[in-house]
Amino acid sequence: MKEINGGVVAPKGFKSAGIRAGIKPNQTNKDMAMVYTEKEAVVAGTFTKNKVKAAPVKWGQEVVYGGGNVNAVVINTGIANACTSTQGYENTKLTANKTAELLGVDINKVLICSTGVIGKQLPMDIILKGVEMLVPSLKDDPQSATNASEAILTTDTHKKEIAFEFEIDGKIVHIGGMCKGSGMIHPNMGTMLGIVTTDVNISKELLQSALSESVESSFNMISVDGDTSTNDTVFVLANGLAENEKIVEKNENYKIFYEMLHKVNVYLAKQIAGDGEGCTRLFEVEVLNAPTHNDAVLLSKSIITSNLTKAAVFGNDANWGRIFCAMGYSGADFDPEKTDIYIESEFGNLKIVENGLATDYDEEVATKILSGKPLRAIADVKIGKETAIAWGCDLTYEYVKINADYRS
Amino acid sequence: MKEINGGVVAPKGFKSAGIRAGIKPNQTNKDMAMVYTEKEAVVAGTFTKNKVKAAPVKWGQEVVYGGGNVNAVVINTGIANACTSTQGYENTKLTANKTAELLGVDINKVLICSTGVIGKQLPMDIILKGVEMLVPSLKDDPQSATNASEAILTTDTHKKEIAFEFEIDGKIVHIGGMCKGSGMIHPNMGTMLGIVTTDVNISKELLQSALSESVESSFNMISVDGDTSTNDTVFVLANGLAENEKIVEKNENYKIFYEMLHKVNVYLAKQIAGDGEGCTRLFEVEVLNAPTHNDAVLLSKSIITSNLTKAAVFGNDANWGRIFCAMGYSGADFDPEKTDIYIESEFGNLKIVENGLATDYDEEVATKILSGKPLRAIADVKIGKETAIAWGCDLTYEYVKINADYRS
Repeated sequence: MKEINGGVVAPKGFKSAGIRAGIKPNQTNKDMAMVYTEKEAVVAGTFTKNKVKAAPVKWGQEVVYGGGNVNAVVINTGIANACTSTQGYENTKLTANKTAELLGVDINKVLICSTGVIGKQLPMDIILKGVEMLVPSLKDDPQSATNASEAILTTDTHKKEIAFEFEIDGKIVHIGGMCKGSGMIHPNMGTMLGIVTTDVNISKELLQSALSESVESSFNMISVDGDTSTNDTVFVLANGLAENEKIVEKNENYKIFYEMLHKVNVYLAKQIAGDGEGCTRLFEVEVLNAPTHNDAVLLSKSIITSNLTKAAVFGNDANWGRIFCAMGYSGADFDPEKTDIYIESEFGNLKIVENGLATDYDEEVATKILSGKPLRAIADVKIGKETAIAWGCDLTYEYVKINADYRS
Repeated sequence: MKEINGGVVAPKGFKSAGIRAGIKPNQTNKDMAMVYTEKEAVVAGTFTKNKVKAAPVKWGQEVVYGGGNVNAVVINTGIANACTSTQGYENTKLTANKTAELLGVDINKVLICSTGVIGKQLPMDIILKGVEMLVPSLKDDPQSATNASEAILTTDTHKKEIAFEFEIDGKIVHIGGMCKGSGMIHPNMGTMLGIVTTDVNISKELLQSALSESVESSFNMISVDGDTSTNDTVFVLANGLAENEKIVEKNENYKIFYEMLHKVNVYLAKQIAGDGEGCTRLFEVEVLNAPTHNDAVLLSKSIITSNLTKAAVFGNDANWGRIFCAMGYSGADFDPEKTDIYIESEFGNLKIVENGLATDYDEEVATKILSGKPLRAIADVKIGKETAIAWGCDLTYEYVKINADYRS
């Protein structure tokens, strides 16, 4: 296994493009992307559990649950096409239809993702012109993947893409992914926009199974602000061009593929958390020795979601009482008086709590460690064997600034 | 019924005091308070549901659930006495014991509340000296109530007290209350520190029933930051000196008392939300016509808890998509495409969403209304008859500043 260049076009047969269509009039950044595989790919998807689902999410669910294969994903930023009723859904289908026409495929082979402001209708003249620009721009070089990964960003400060090469059955297999995140990040069984491509040969059922399992301990373990978006979506497209023997059961080959998919998802998830709106750094929380996995998940997510803990991280303040407080209201089973807490960063590690009481630690040392990157906190609850890791970020003035006037 | 002066000493037979003991060395504000009734009072209490409970919460539960009457409540700020193990509990009992000695009552007649930093032990020399200062300072004039209400504040910017006079059975009855709030405010079946006194004559059982019912639609409907404290407590002490016929069943007199108690609790709850850490104003959300009361509660609380919505309020930004998003992940039953949203303040009111779509409103008018106080948003989901109101505040730079370095 090795990390390679190329992002979503690293797998054989995939092309991508990212361009500026002009959805947000006063900006100059790219705002539409396309990922394409000429050979149809089996597809797996996970979607937001928010009751308010954006139009492209509804369309994506129809396509993925409908069971067919796909050729393309089109993504626009600037407008989320959520809370847009019938017209919003029609606009999603118009975009898919235009893409299908130009690519010479059926409309049901085209997935759509949107992200941006809720409640506005898409400017369809600009979107359709964007599709017309994207199709001839499709390429399989690393720059085209980078263009696509840049075109899907909103308040993100940098692109998020990765690719790996590995082996199954003596065949070289590739997997690549890109995503965007930043705000309204608290995925629930889905995630923000994430597109993973692979040339592995696998059944749709097992691809979905691998994705569903992996998101639980990757994208679903991050939070920027506790707000579960209306548009969360991850798609994995597998076109089979690696020509390994088709994976149709959970054998060794499935495990190899699963581990690589999970590696991509965890990488992308951490990138989202570490680039949360206004944040200064990634904040990783590991809960050790919980009685059940669910307890470990509840505890770690509660800590990374706590506004007070996040503000203390921003201030390099070893205010561990807030960690205990967040654990206490998580609903999980643990005994505060048995719990140890450690902090850890590039500047060292330190046990600050033992059996629920402050150790005799040096505040200056703690403050130094807390100022480091990446910052980790470990809560050892010592009453079981289950572990979970969650990823968040600090809460800063900049978060408030970005969100006090996001639309203008 | 009329509003009167005197806060917690407005009811007959109650005295109070607020002094500076010196718990936080570098400050000059008052930090200990006492409320006292010579005639024993029946007592009701509600407490935090956080699994991490502060020592004084554990002691308060023993006293209240033990069934006895009480004479006094002692409150300290600066240190929460949470996550302090056996020593913390012993310190709570030492405080109660000293108070009991000086007042000539049994230790079980003394309730304790603490608020402040988690994880530090109380400076018992200062606390016990504080008790010695408080007892001779007890008075029944309005200034002593004001002193007490000031002594319980932490990051609050102003005192929170109120009192009413009303009639039951031709007897004049009084009720008064005080509370503190500001940060780590997301009460769950309890609240922040709140002390309500009354001279009504009522059974312990009905006093508890009235309190438990009232907190559900007062203190439990506010949130500043989503963090449920380790120390939330409300006590109601009723000493019976109004000499009305004892209330022992849910008759008309109970209803009169309940309404007054609820009026006090809602007033105090709104004061806490409107004085949330760093906030500029109260943000009230009313959900109309939900299918069940629980749906109305989930929807309204989800909106006031959403960081993104709170930041938009700070920025006077009519970003109603965030309200829809928060409703969508609340877990409540509603139909986005039937929902209307109104905003309302001193500067007018405006329907900004009808049946899930933006109305043709003027952004400038919306921004003006959003800049007003108090700010209300009304979500009419139009599929039932149930209503709920929740209270929160905006999310500001100042909140981050306060909490990035709370301990220093």
